Amino acid sequence: MIITLLTDFGESEYVGMMKGVIARLCPNAKIIDLTHSIRKFDIRHACFVLWQSYRFFPKSTVFVVVVDPGVGTERRGIILKTKDYIFIGPDNGVFTLINDVDKIIEIPRPKKASFTFHGRDVFAPIAAKIACGAKIEELGSEIKSFKKLKIRKPERKGDKIFGEVLCIDAFGNIITNIPKEILNLEYNQSITIKIKEKFRVRFLKSYGYAEKNELLALIGSADTLEIAVNQGNAAEKLGVKGGEEVVINL
Amino acid sequence: MIITLLTDFGESEYVGMMKGVIARLCPNAKIIDLTHSIRKFDIRHACFVLWQSYRFFPKSTVFVVVVDPGVGTERRGIILKTKDYIFIGPDNGVFTLINDVDKIIEIPRPKKASFTFHGRDVFAPIAAKIACGAKIEELGSEIKSFKKLKIRKPERKGDKIFGEVLCIDAFGNIITNIPKEILNLEYNQSITIKIKEKFRVRFLKSYGYAEKNELLALIGSADTLEIAVNQGNAAEKLGVKGGEEVVINL
Amino acid sequence: MIITLLTDFGESEYVGMMKGVIARLCPNAKIIDLTHSIRKFDIRHACFVLWQSYRFFPKSTVFVVVVDPGVGTERRGIILKTKDYIFIGPDNGVFTLINDVDKIIEIPRPKKASFTFHGRDVFAPIAAKIACGAKIEELGSEIKSFKKLKIRKPERKGDKIFGEVLCIDAFGNIITNIPKEILNLEYNQSITIKIKEKFRVRFLKSYGYAEKNELLALIGSADTLEIAVNQGNAAEKLGVKGGEEVVINL
Repeated sequence: MIITLLTDFGESEYVGMMKGVIARLCPNAKIIDLTHSIRKFDIRHACFVLWQSYRFFPKSTVFVVVVDPGVGTERRGIILKTKDYIFIGPDNGVFTLINDVDKIIEIPRPKKASFTFHGRDVFAPIAAKIACGAKIEELGSEIKSFKKLKIRKPERKGDKIFGEVLCIDAFGNIITNIPKEILNLEYNQSITIKIKEKFRVRFLKSYGYAEKNELLALIGSADTLEIAVNQGNAAEKLGVKGGEEVVINL
Repeated sequence: MIITLLTDFGESEYVGMMKGVIARLCPNAKIIDLTHSIRKFDIRHACFVLWQSYRFFPKSTVFVVVVDPGVGTERRGIILKTKDYIFIGPDNGVFTLINDVDKIIEIPRPKKASFTFHGRDVFAPIAAKIACGAKIEELGSEIKSFKKLKIRKPERKGDKIFGEVLCIDAFGNIITNIPKEILNLEYNQSITIKIKEKFRVRFLKSYGYAEKNELLALIGSADTLEIAVNQGNAAEKLGVKGGEEVVINL
Repeated sequence: MIITLLTDFGESEYVGMMKGVIARLCPNAKIIDLTHSIRKFDIRHACFVLWQSYRFFPKSTVFVVVVDPGVGTERRGIILKTKDYIFIGPDNGVFTLINDVDKIIEIPRPKKASFTFHGRDVFAPIAAKIACGAKIEELGSEIKSFKKLKIRKPERKGDKIFGEVLCIDAFGNIITNIPKEILNLEYNQSITIKIKEKFRVRFLKSYGYAEKNELLALIGSADTLEIAVNQGNAAEKLGVKGGEEVVINL
């Protein structure tokens, strides 16, 4: 069974230690790094990256998410089960965009766990046990709800579309939450977008149809509106960091 | 079978998604990250790193290379087969230094593929199919040639040797394309090198034979001339980025 | 059998090449990256990260450590065997904190090895052979001792405790070598700490009990005193890099 790890640990020994713990408890578990480049302490960022990614993994994959500024405080650890997947992590909003949750289990804190590294001492052991066959019901007690962040829903009002910046990817592309269905644009059409400041760009099929260093809009690989610079970094160019409001004038 | 991934994605969720796709289509494929630190959009860099690395992998390894500024445009996707290996990626020059290619297959674009992430939607699925036994002839139609970048061949003219900087490694070492056979130097010999500016260095056996912070020349692990600083960063010191001409005065 | 890799290579093709070599010689070895983010050439940093991490891995794990500024010089390559683990790397002090070593083997240098990349040409092949069943006695000749760095032992003198900064983690947390047993502090107690400059902080259970951006002291996941900033970077704030003396006034 596959265990994926999604953290804000960067490329650090903390990831290696989690893998050691898993290998000790469930030697046959296959571990895949989803990414460890979540902006440190940024629960929203983790939430969106998880949402963009999880459906590409095989059924039964166990997702461990450790972006956890409240580690060691009263925040709970939880297991979520959907029809196809299992999610493990702190109950701080990282699972906001996971829908159709069938069961929620609160994880008891082991007495020997450190107060600062539940990725290693709580979540990795739970993931290993599940990967080696444990039923989630045996791992804690069922609860009724889990914490959800407030996310503005994208909407159209007349000739304006409102949304927000979900995150910035490794290329500096600005990923928004505005789905292609709302947009209804044609290639080469120019649109005015406001993210902090107003700018006018062409809507194109892919990066390479723009001039080098041209700012453009396109449907990205998350199937939502993305702002990019061909062979450049849009987030740096526009000073965008994630969470900003997006307004489109058609 | 082993699938290696070589991209300019950095440590990002895009790599994780590709691994998810592969795990879904071919659960037993073993995935190895070659590196994801190629300078963004730098096809030459990917080309050289692949050339330096691929011969260390087991026979039958499948190399997926995704440095692809033209994703979603008319550039083709291809599969190359040599006696020992298989290579998959965009036909943009990343495979320039792969010799003795026995067969070239053009990959048709799946209808459902995004226009911006063929690593996930085109190349990873092809790699997974090959790792799980598909014949490459079943995956597309044979073509006769693939794109090659122009690379200056290193040469000796009298007491001068001409070459170029292949790439900068993670330590800031400057890797050139000048093979040790052309050089014929003795340890401790001083030589004058011009890369942007002229400088004079000792030719040594390894980094540790230089003084701390001394600039030196040596035969690096690619078996070519390398310029380094002992416990320092030669590329930063000399302002070299890759692609520059190298001239040696013996 | 598991082989872990601990290097200062960053996210680079040099790690990928080592994995290729291992896969060729021992296809069933399971490779885990411990971390590749050791500060370049920093043997002390590698030494402490290894010490913090190795006990979380399964018995029989083989640890390959390549932080090796003296590669290609006269420094030896060694294998250490303890009751539970095997360690492979340069004899330059990286194994200073490995105790209860049962056997030390000096690795002969293969004739074909490069002078600059023993991770690929010496240590990875040795690890692969061990993972596939070779006895360490067959891989070199036994020696009596290995190099150890001088590390100040933490100690209490009256109402002062003396120690040192072991390393800075990926969050900028300052990890010291002062164990919780010496400290005997109560939560919410204020203490004065000197690392370069004096500062006064609260001793708390975990990061989240401090105000956002507050400097705090706590027992970290290495079970030693750690200085942190809640949702911030303590090392940047205090200008600490590792190796500094720590003095606590109780």
